[in-house]
Amino acid sequence: MDFKTQLASAQSRIADALTQHLENFGDTNVAKGMRYATSGGKRLRGFLVLESAALFDVPASQAVHAACAIETLHAYSLVHDDLPAMDDDDLRRGQPTVHVKWDEATGILVGDALQTLAFEILGKHETHADAEVRIGLMSSLAKASGAEGMVLGQALDIEAESAGRPLSLDEITHLQAGKTGALIEWSATAGARLGQADTSPLSRYAKAIGLAFQIADDILDIEGDAEKAGKALRKDAEAGKATFVSLLGLEPARQRAFDLVAEAETALAPYGEKAQSLRDLARYIVSRDA
Amino acid sequence: MDFKTQLASAQSRIADALTQHLENFGDTNVAKGMRYATSGGKRLRGFLVLESAALFDVPASQAVHAACAIETLHAYSLVHDDLPAMDDDDLRRGQPTVHVKWDEATGILVGDALQTLAFEILGKHETHADAEVRIGLMSSLAKASGAEGMVLGQALDIEAESAGRPLSLDEITHLQAGKTGALIEWSATAGARLGQADTSPLSRYAKAIGLAFQIADDILDIEGDAEKAGKALRKDAEAGKATFVSLLGLEPARQRAFDLVAEAETALAPYGEKAQSLRDLARYIVSRDA
Repeated sequence: MDFKTQLASAQSRIADALTQHLENFGDTNVAKGMRYATSGGKRLRGFLVLESAALFDVPASQAVHAACAIETLHAYSLVHDDLPAMDDDDLRRGQPTVHVKWDEATGILVGDALQTLAFEILGKHETHADAEVRIGLMSSLAKASGAEGMVLGQALDIEAESAGRPLSLDEITHLQAGKTGALIEWSATAGARLGQADTSPLSRYAKAIGLAFQIADDILDIEGDAEKAGKALRKDAEAGKATFVSLLGLEPARQRAFDLVAEAETALAPYGEKAQSLRDLARYIVSRDA
Repeated sequence: MDFKTQLASAQSRIADALTQHLENFGDTNVAKGMRYATSGGKRLRGFLVLESAALFDVPASQAVHAACAIETLHAYSLVHDDLPAMDDDDLRRGQPTVHVKWDEATGILVGDALQTLAFEILGKHETHADAEVRIGLMSSLAKASGAEGMVLGQALDIEAESAGRPLSLDEITHLQAGKTGALIEWSATAGARLGQADTSPLSRYAKAIGLAFQIADDILDIEGDAEKAGKALRKDAEAGKATFVSLLGLEPARQRAFDLVAEAETALAPYGEKAQSLRDLARYIVSRDA
């Protein structure tokens, strides 16, 4: 199976499982918004869970639940990021954002309930039979997404804006390690947790692709097509925000992303041929057009 | 020890433990806001955890962690409830709300990170040595606080406002069972979970005091002193919202609250003298002036 087919198959498997995890919430606007916010998207984090789990022969039918948890958590972060008081975005994945389609209160509650759902899914027996493994998944997700991880990155981001000076390369790297890196690392190591194996090679792989992902995002923000991306672009440049491109220059940034892909591939050496889809993903991350 | 002394002692124990759980988050405004939003308050939910745990001889030094988790989760819900797009409150516990003291983006992120922290605390080994017990606490908290629990209550509340017709008594009871009842029930049953005991008597107790608590809140909203309450009052009446008082009348509502206290006391019968503080709490809930 080639990479695009594999990714499409993961997307469809995750979408089916999400439907099941979201079916008990009735018919309020908040429940509708939760389903809306978790539909579509590239599902790269969920794909990482499925493919890292496959390295340890954890079947996709089991790993899909942890994949749903990270997609749900990621969706919460997007819904809150899009709010008027945050990035104030009207468009996401080519569709109106939750607060535009409904209202701000619904956006806040949809994000809140999606975060809760991520932990609820990880607590379910179908995620893993061993409670120690489920606790490990939940605790590491809390650490990755909270005030030492993703929210720390967001907090540093809004403080940088109000400080009125662009960040340095070190500061941006630290910020992004929290804002996008921590969830990507959780996703790649979740497979090892499900397989009760050593997480460190996947952690190295994820740190490299997480940074490459962000650099690629900064390049897309400059070179990309807003219609393909399904969201507003060139916002960072217009806001005068420091990015990897503004700090390194376009070509050196591109080179840095390719170097990181090579690092990521090296980290996968222990898994040999089995890790081909994770290698493909690393290359996809820096060559995608949306 | 009388009830007031016991409550004060629980408040101080919970405050100390919260300081420890919040110390690793650095010095961003979000971290400051997390500490600010979790300081003060009556700690009734945390007290319920400590006192229900004591029924099963779980020491307070252990139960305090689950108590911190529910206080953290409750604080998240208040910070988000106070946001301009939600209840738009400027004052909480007599102090400026988080979005007033900092800004809305900080308010959103503080609430988000406090929710995460609640699950993180429950995942820690010090909460309980047995991973099955920790998973039980986390999963039940997710259910109680998410789109089938607290957020469902909030979703029904905002939909009732836009529907433009006051709710019926059944509808308000259902709404409040989610909005405030579910976390109170989690708190009272957490002790039984920590003690690996049957949760059903405490669940009956909590359902009764949860409803009594909301009726008392509605009475306070009419009769209370805003200065003592540390927040704006008479907002429901001004907004024309249905409350237990508007639906039942003031004296019948008061009588219903006393009947619920009697129900709660009956539910505690299996625990005899050991449950005195929980009986005191039930009476305090309907007689408090703030």
